Amino acid sequence: MTAPETLADVIRERSGEILAGWIVRFERSPLRFRRATKAESHTSQVANLVEALGVAASSSELRPGSGATRELERNAAFLGAQFASEGATGFDIAALMVELREVIASMAPADEVVAMSRLFEWLTVVALDTFASSGLQSLRERIADQLEIGTPVVELLPKVPACLLVGAPPAGVIDGLLSRAWMLAIGTGAPCVIIDCGGLAEAGEKNFEAGYREFLVQAEGSAIQILLSTARRGLRETATILASEKALPFQHFDRLDSAVAHAVERAGYLLMRRS
Amino acid sequence: MTAPETLADVIRERSGEILAGWIVRFERSPLRFRRATKAESHTSQVANLVEALGVAASSSELRPGSGATRELERNAAFLGAQFASEGATGFDIAALMVELREVIASMAPADEVVAMSRLFEWLTVVALDTFASSGLQSLRERIADQLEIGTPVVELLPKVPACLLVGAPPAGVIDGLLSRAWMLAIGTGAPCVIIDCGGLAEAGEKNFEAGYREFLVQAEGSAIQILLSTARRGLRETATILASEKALPFQHFDRLDSAVAHAVERAGYLLMRRS
Repeated sequence: MTAPETLADVIRERSGEILAGWIVRFERSPLRFRRATKAESHTSQVANLVEALGVAASSSELRPGSGATRELERNAAFLGAQFASEGATGFDIAALMVELREVIASMAPADEVVAMSRLFEWLTVVALDTFASSGLQSLRERIADQLEIGTPVVELLPKVPACLLVGAPPAGVIDGLLSRAWMLAIGTGAPCVIIDCGGLAEAGEKNFEAGYREFLVQAEGSAIQILLSTARRGLRETATILASEKALPFQHFDRLDSAVAHAVERAGYLLMRRS
Repeated sequence: MTAPETLADVIRERSGEILAGWIVRFERSPLRFRRATKAESHTSQVANLVEALGVAASSSELRPGSGATRELERNAAFLGAQFASEGATGFDIAALMVELREVIASMAPADEVVAMSRLFEWLTVVALDTFASSGLQSLRERIADQLEIGTPVVELLPKVPACLLVGAPPAGVIDGLLSRAWMLAIGTGAPCVIIDCGGLAEAGEKNFEAGYREFLVQAEGSAIQILLSTARRGLRETATILASEKALPFQHFDRLDSAVAHAVERAGYLLMRRS
């Protein structure tokens, strides 16, 4: 009589069979009512998962959160992130995990099925939590990119460069936008640069100080005047103090058009009413 | 001898006990390693879930997706959405469901435990999928709000109103922004209104047409000239055609500062180089 087969043996010796069984079950899984993805696009991920499970099962403890299952958890999290980037649903992820569990459970020794099922429950939650958080994270990044690219950093008139901040860009994006406006002022020989804060959301105002500080480090020693417009009181006071610390010429305007009129004049133009 | 107790009986007669057991288990659940929420803030949701489970269990089929479990699925989805709005993690939701299943499984007749566990697996997935999608949805709404409030709709100079579109606002937001710019033109007696598209992301360009169409319906018959600036070719062509269909004066400028210079002149000002 040979020793009874263990879960680790089953996975090592029958991984091809497990994968084939998974493909059939996944394609028919009742959890996937939209069927956005095909089994073949996930087989390599599932093969990795099965391999990591084999390694974990060879150790003594097949327990969520233990050292032996860490690699499996990483696999599950990676899988959740990948599904989020593919626009899949949580149901697709659950189907992948549940059907894999079913296939393995049908082959595994009875005394290891309970621990294995618990572990899969845990891995499914890990994958689904990462699915949710990485979906949010990538949307946030996309929005930050859109603001970085789309926030107006423009000449409103010749030699009147302006940056009109919108929404809640992260500090690094604010720094980048202000620096671009600054370069525009230098490139066009403008005497002023307008920074309008009227469009900043509350979260954006919070990020402003850090971005503005970074920007001032770069601007230090320059003669270009900073015209801050439509900034709420707290922001205006901070911006004023920080600019004066760097000895940079600075002025605040309650309205953007007043700042533009000032910049037009400083640029050597006269705005005259036609008679 | 009385008839054997069913799951429906257990839930009906011992719901208080189930809830108490759930509170203890949830507070200690190993799934909740961050412990952001307390059991007491979810007891009413869990009570609703237990009640819906009791109703479902009284019917013949305790099967995912069946008519009898629809109310339960709605409960689970609602729960996922609520957790998303509270900044909880997927682990918190899973803990709520898993621990409730454990409590009920410990009381339920053995022959109903398997079907009940399957149902809970399904409900957990429903809750986690809604958690992910509603988190994304509320972030999208927040971003749309920030663009609606923050997109510059401003006078760049007296009688030079402009709307500088940024990012990917939904069509309804674009319509609202253009309408506000229009009202600003009317309110200040401006002869032109500038619509700058330089900051629109690709998704925003796609939404532009629908929003612009809505806006034109409102603007029809007016003499205010539309100055479109920095719009890519497809957008420019569409905007030109639509404006001419409504017989609205329209002109495109490759650069914002050219549009502003035109608007300044039309507003009766001369921009003169100081000698």
